[in-house]
Amino acid sequence: MNLLTSGSTADYIDTGSWAVKAIKEAKRVGSVHVTGSTKADSYSRIPESGELKFTPGAAYVHMTSNNTIEGTQWKSIPEVGNAPLVCDASSDIFSRPIDIGRHGLVYAGAQKNLGPSGVTLVMIREDLLQRSNDSLHTMLDYRTHANNDSLYNTPNTFGIYVLGLTMKWLRASGGLSGIQAINERKAAKLYAEIDRGGFYRGTAQKGSRSLMNVTFRLPTEDLEKTFNKEATAAGLDGLKGHRLVGGMRASLYNAFPEAGVDVLVDFMREFERRRG
Amino acid sequence: MNLLTSGSTADYIDTGSWAVKAIKEAKRVGSVHVTGSTKADSYSRIPESGELKFTPGAAYVHMTSNNTIEGTQWKSIPEVGNAPLVCDASSDIFSRPIDIGRHGLVYAGAQKNLGPSGVTLVMIREDLLQRSNDSLHTMLDYRTHANNDSLYNTPNTFGIYVLGLTMKWLRASGGLSGIQAINERKAAKLYAEIDRGGFYRGTAQKGSRSLMNVTFRLPTEDLEKTFNKEATAAGLDGLKGHRLVGGMRASLYNAFPEAGVDVLVDFMREFERRRG
Repeated sequence: MNLLTSGSTADYIDTGSWAVKAIKEAKRVGSVHVTGSTKADSYSRIPESGELKFTPGAAYVHMTSNNTIEGTQWKSIPEVGNAPLVCDASSDIFSRPIDIGRHGLVYAGAQKNLGPSGVTLVMIREDLLQRSNDSLHTMLDYRTHANNDSLYNTPNTFGIYVLGLTMKWLRASGGLSGIQAINERKAAKLYAEIDRGGFYRGTAQKGSRSLMNVTFRLPTEDLEKTFNKEATAAGLDGLKGHRLVGGMRASLYNAFPEAGVDVLVDFMREFERRRG
Repeated sequence: MNLLTSGSTADYIDTGSWAVKAIKEAKRVGSVHVTGSTKADSYSRIPESGELKFTPGAAYVHMTSNNTIEGTQWKSIPEVGNAPLVCDASSDIFSRPIDIGRHGLVYAGAQKNLGPSGVTLVMIREDLLQRSNDSLHTMLDYRTHANNDSLYNTPNTFGIYVLGLTMKWLRASGGLSGIQAINERKAAKLYAEIDRGGFYRGTAQKGSRSLMNVTFRLPTEDLEKTFNKEATAAGLDGLKGHRLVGGMRASLYNAFPEAGVDVLVDFMREFERRRG
């Protein structure tokens, strides 16, 4: 609503469910070009750079850095030419350093890595604020928030306070590089277990695997149901995959401790021993 | 955006700063008729019913039940004919019972009487949901939230939890009738002090006085500055009136204890004795 100006086209990279929702909303505003999609591969991977065909003079290029449902994640920022890169980083923000200078706008709901739900972080390159149209409602106009230090309205003060505490915890955990090392170690342990034998099977292609959401299947849906039931009983709750893709999903956001991964891996080995 | 359909007009009653903001936003959507205003009286009163001229077939009539800056409040729900009544009840919701059956839509930010900031309560008459247009963005379409039990997105869960606790406290305080009696007693004590002599002067006309925001002046601006400074030093903080109107403002929302009013009244008497 702020960046897609009249007569221009926005490029969207379609990597899964959240990208599809973003595309749907953008089409209400203006012209949208899907500049690459891995839908034909059930979104099991991130597109290769050669697959992306950008619109010359695009208003911006939109990407989803991590796909929670499909368990995929961009490993590097794509080259998008001169158009500003807009990134929905809701599910992997501050899980690793990013080159903010290569982004025009980054937005992220707080509830994965930032703090409690009910806060959204937006970082926008200052020159892009010029695009906002005067017909926008005051609260929907990014200029309102930029010009008022994000205090035009009374925001979610408690949520922002807890977000501040989370940022202090993040700094004490070694900052973005420190948390990246921890996140890589957590995910590596779980993917190693998935890859160990043929019982478990990762659904995302290896080069596109997410450090935040590890998706995997078992040999049969019946075994998946049993796994989910026994895991929940063992205190490993929330492992059922999204209904769109089925299977299992282990979310390893910043706040999830490495010890939790160890417990899950032990449970998986024991489950395979008994049921495999 | 949801109720003002193409070709129709919305009636707005202009009772102060928040009404002016609502009118400004409505004009971005469609035709707006200001159906009565007390601007000429510096918004020191609520309009009489005879002053309101409604548009036949209006999409709705919008009112602001309490005006925080000007210290005025509607004492009864106006007769608005057949148009649905839309009420911004942000600053006096649940301070007293209201006849919800006479409203088409009530909306209220949580941060006065409901709970922490970052939550907005919307109550809408079911048939009015039919007006929402398919061109609305998903998150701005009331149908999205009505059809998904207000859980289409991940909302401000902590804020809603605390709101629930506040509702339990409200029930334990005698419900809406109980809190109304307390609020009336609190405001009556403060207005009695304002009216006692000629030193303090209420800015809202007597028939329009708010139970939530009590606005008053002192004989001079210098005395107001001194009052504010000494009150703050005595632990009575936040009494400075909004910069638009000056003077003093004591906000007596549900959570403010009656004992706090007693302390303020004592301070006012002592201040007048020393400085009057």
